[in-house]
Amino acid sequence: MTGSRIDPETPTRPIRLADVKSWHETVDVLVVGYGAAGVCAAIEAAQTGATTLVLERASGGGGTTAMAGGVLYLGGGTRVQKACGVDDSPEAMLRYLTASTPDPDPEKFRLYVEGSVAHFDWLVEQGVPFKDALHTERTTQPANDDGLFWSGNEKSWPYKEIAKPAPRGHKVQAPGDAGALLFAKLHEAALKSGARIQYDTRVMKLVLDERGAVVGVVARQDGEDRAFRARRGVILCAGGFAMNDTLRQRHLSRLVGRAIPIGNPYDDGTGLRLGLSARGAAIHLDEYHITVPYYPPGSLTYGILVNGQGQRFIAEDAYHGRIGETASRQPGGTVFLIVDDPIFGRPEIDGFEVVAVEESIAGLEKTLALPPTSLERTVELFNRNAAAGTDPILHKQPAWLRPLTEPPFAAFDLSFGKATYMAFSLGGLWTKSTGEVLTEDGEVVEGLFAAGRNCCGISRSAEGYVSGTSIGDATFFGRLAGRTAAARRPEGRNA
Amino acid sequence: MTGSRIDPETPTRPIRLADVKSWHETVDVLVVGYGAAGVCAAIEAAQTGATTLVLERASGGGGTTAMAGGVLYLGGGTRVQKACGVDDSPEAMLRYLTASTPDPDPEKFRLYVEGSVAHFDWLVEQGVPFKDALHTERTTQPANDDGLFWSGNEKSWPYKEIAKPAPRGHKVQAPGDAGALLFAKLHEAALKSGARIQYDTRVMKLVLDERGAVVGVVARQDGEDRAFRARRGVILCAGGFAMNDTLRQRHLSRLVGRAIPIGNPYDDGTGLRLGLSARGAAIHLDEYHITVPYYPPGSLTYGILVNGQGQRFIAEDAYHGRIGETASRQPGGTVFLIVDDPIFGRPEIDGFEVVAVEESIAGLEKTLALPPTSLERTVELFNRNAAAGTDPILHKQPAWLRPLTEPPFAAFDLSFGKATYMAFSLGGLWTKSTGEVLTEDGEVVEGLFAAGRNCCGISRSAEGYVSGTSIGDATFFGRLAGRTAAARRPEGRNA
Repeated sequence: MTGSRIDPETPTRPIRLADVKSWHETVDVLVVGYGAAGVCAAIEAAQTGATTLVLERASGGGGTTAMAGGVLYLGGGTRVQKACGVDDSPEAMLRYLTASTPDPDPEKFRLYVEGSVAHFDWLVEQGVPFKDALHTERTTQPANDDGLFWSGNEKSWPYKEIAKPAPRGHKVQAPGDAGALLFAKLHEAALKSGARIQYDTRVMKLVLDERGAVVGVVARQDGEDRAFRARRGVILCAGGFAMNDTLRQRHLSRLVGRAIPIGNPYDDGTGLRLGLSARGAAIHLDEYHITVPYYPPGSLTYGILVNGQGQRFIAEDAYHGRIGETASRQPGGTVFLIVDDPIFGRPEIDGFEVVAVEESIAGLEKTLALPPTSLERTVELFNRNAAAGTDPILHKQPAWLRPLTEPPFAAFDLSFGKATYMAFSLGGLWTKSTGEVLTEDGEVVEGLFAAGRNCCGISRSAEGYVSGTSIGDATFFGRLAGRTAAARRPEGRNA
Repeated sequence: MTGSRIDPETPTRPIRLADVKSWHETVDVLVVGYGAAGVCAAIEAAQTGATTLVLERASGGGGTTAMAGGVLYLGGGTRVQKACGVDDSPEAMLRYLTASTPDPDPEKFRLYVEGSVAHFDWLVEQGVPFKDALHTERTTQPANDDGLFWSGNEKSWPYKEIAKPAPRGHKVQAPGDAGALLFAKLHEAALKSGARIQYDTRVMKLVLDERGAVVGVVARQDGEDRAFRARRGVILCAGGFAMNDTLRQRHLSRLVGRAIPIGNPYDDGTGLRLGLSARGAAIHLDEYHITVPYYPPGSLTYGILVNGQGQRFIAEDAYHGRIGETASRQPGGTVFLIVDDPIFGRPEIDGFEVVAVEESIAGLEKTLALPPTSLERTVELFNRNAAAGTDPILHKQPAWLRPLTEPPFAAFDLSFGKATYMAFSLGGLWTKSTGEVLTEDGEVVEGLFAAGRNCCGISRSAEGYVSGTSIGDATFFGRLAGRTAAARRPEGRNA
């Protein structure tokens, strides 16, 4: 290595191969980042016999996955689905995912649904436990260890008319957040596979040969800048950019000051910047997942969401992410949740203020400063239809239809900019399903791969996001990237 | 030059300086693309005494500007504004632009509003004529040669409450589309300035030195690939990517098959790809301007827009672009324009079908298969308020409020995917206001500039777009890029 000091805030301008004086280590596959994507890439690469090294910036593995619920969106007839009597097919899953995504990646989607059952089985083989129990309560994720729940918009209009609904959220068997257990099991498997992990190691730059191919990285380790050669490939698995104020301002400005970023502190876009530095292209950097997590309690779903015009705008049984996105786009961001006494409950998450409690809807309308008669009309119409078990306006499922008639009536403020919204980035490097990073010209950047949130994956829009696609995608395509990189012809003469 | 044949569809991977055998020409400033941005960059560069060469792919100049209406969004007290008795200020203009943009670029915005009057005067000095006449009719652009009109959402809620409204659409003095006249005048000025223009010349690749600085281009000219050296800078002014099917599918997928791309055939993203090839970053590639141009006739503005829920969703006096974006996001994209007999008129642009004509609103509601009583309630409420001269729901201006009471009633189908929507890209290279292209790290790519739609400018969101910001921005920042490039320290020893 050149020995030049690289400042922690240094730009990612690549190092030229000719400027690398010596290699600290040479391996076949080098994985940058040790979360769900990185661990799966490492397992698969190492299992082929390729020497595999993971460089992780934190002092331990897990990334954002280890902080998360531990939900994977899988379907088409997994063991858990079958045990719970759920009838699902890859076709229905593909139809649902495609319908809910403005820009579906045909090959990634096909591979993901066709390989979903096998991927579930593989996770079980790695020691990841799932309980054969369907959680029927409406929630953002089961608080107990149930293995299956409705994690998206499958039963919500218009999707219920497009694809046969099935629950596909597979939660790892642990109460509360199960992401740590998921990662622990995968980490054990990675160690068994022979992959090595080095922590407290920050990858600063890529090393490019004269053709622009990626042949290694320079990383800060033990206070030194060390060059690591990757004969077969570098796989970027370093997460999204939700936690980087600068990048969030640049690409996701409508969220700034309005949505709390979700992620681990190292979701700072370093992986994205590294990929761009080698001429990788990025897609959908303006896209994000946003949630307004006002339920549980599920009983609030019986309520209605209205905007500043006193009008409903979405079926209230939709997934919280779809509700969050749609709510955030109402005029002025103004949104209220209207409930009556029997269904009232406090959201488990803070930040949803009760801004009005009145004995009549007219009184509520006045207190909320909604246009005269607007809320009254909306509730009257909703109630009349709900009493008949229908919602011809927005097609809320009959199971959630119940007239709001019992005072007192209350309004929660769900306005964008006031209530709790949370968000993370969905855009990233443009990759083939193999993880190979592409330039804007559609050329492969030789030697460079990306997986997980470092690339743009299955979920790529706020309106289409469903829980479990992040870890589902990261593990699935992390594995594929690991296998592809390991199978790549070794780079250069010294390989 | 190496003499290698470069296929027309060749990727933009840069040429290394070391691989350039000879230079066909050496100039100070090289401008890629000869539309509004390019011609202004050339004028300013050449006027400093810098040798300036424009390479244009088409057989003549003008780009998309020459096909356009010829409107520039300028304000703060231009000659035309003053002559028309319009009271405007840079502060009001800045407040309006900032409020209508999710991600305003503070420096670009400040320079643009502060320099707006001087820029107008400069255009006049170049021979561009503007008539001191305010066009008061609501239209997408004046059909006659009036010089000033309302080209945005200034008078529409919520902007009217945020910034003092003023008309800022300055149309070049010619009936119909005036963009060709604008360009012709600027072209004359460019020739006077000493800039040279070479047509039928397609820039294929950038030439980079070993530090990654841009030092020239390789262009296809007279059937040969020729290298052009730029001692001070290359300015990319090659337009957006609206006309490139592949890029549109990748970045603007929600428009595909639903909105007609607007632009000239060479708005194919070549400039964007060239900038990315030198590690320039792109921002807001997912953003676009979309319009649903159902007016003129302006009388249709008295009608109401309703979605598939039979609900209004926007003040109908908003700018057609803001209406287009909001309409496209209604559930299922379903939107109808409801009118009564006195205001009925055929849209000047094709593609807005009358899908129902009935003697009653109830009849219309049924024919349109809207939820029972939904449209009736909406119209009843609208009419009651309109009769009182108010729109407490969506704050349409009193001037456009009139109850819909005189049969027959008609509905135009404005649904996204059925009616005529038109769109172009707004995202592009990330630049400083000087035109210097930045990497995702925020570093300047030495020697590379971009202006016009090749970069991301003043208008950068569908909801905030107003007519005249494209050519306004292109000419204003094209000039600044030209001056900045010309003032740059010459590159290399042979300079």
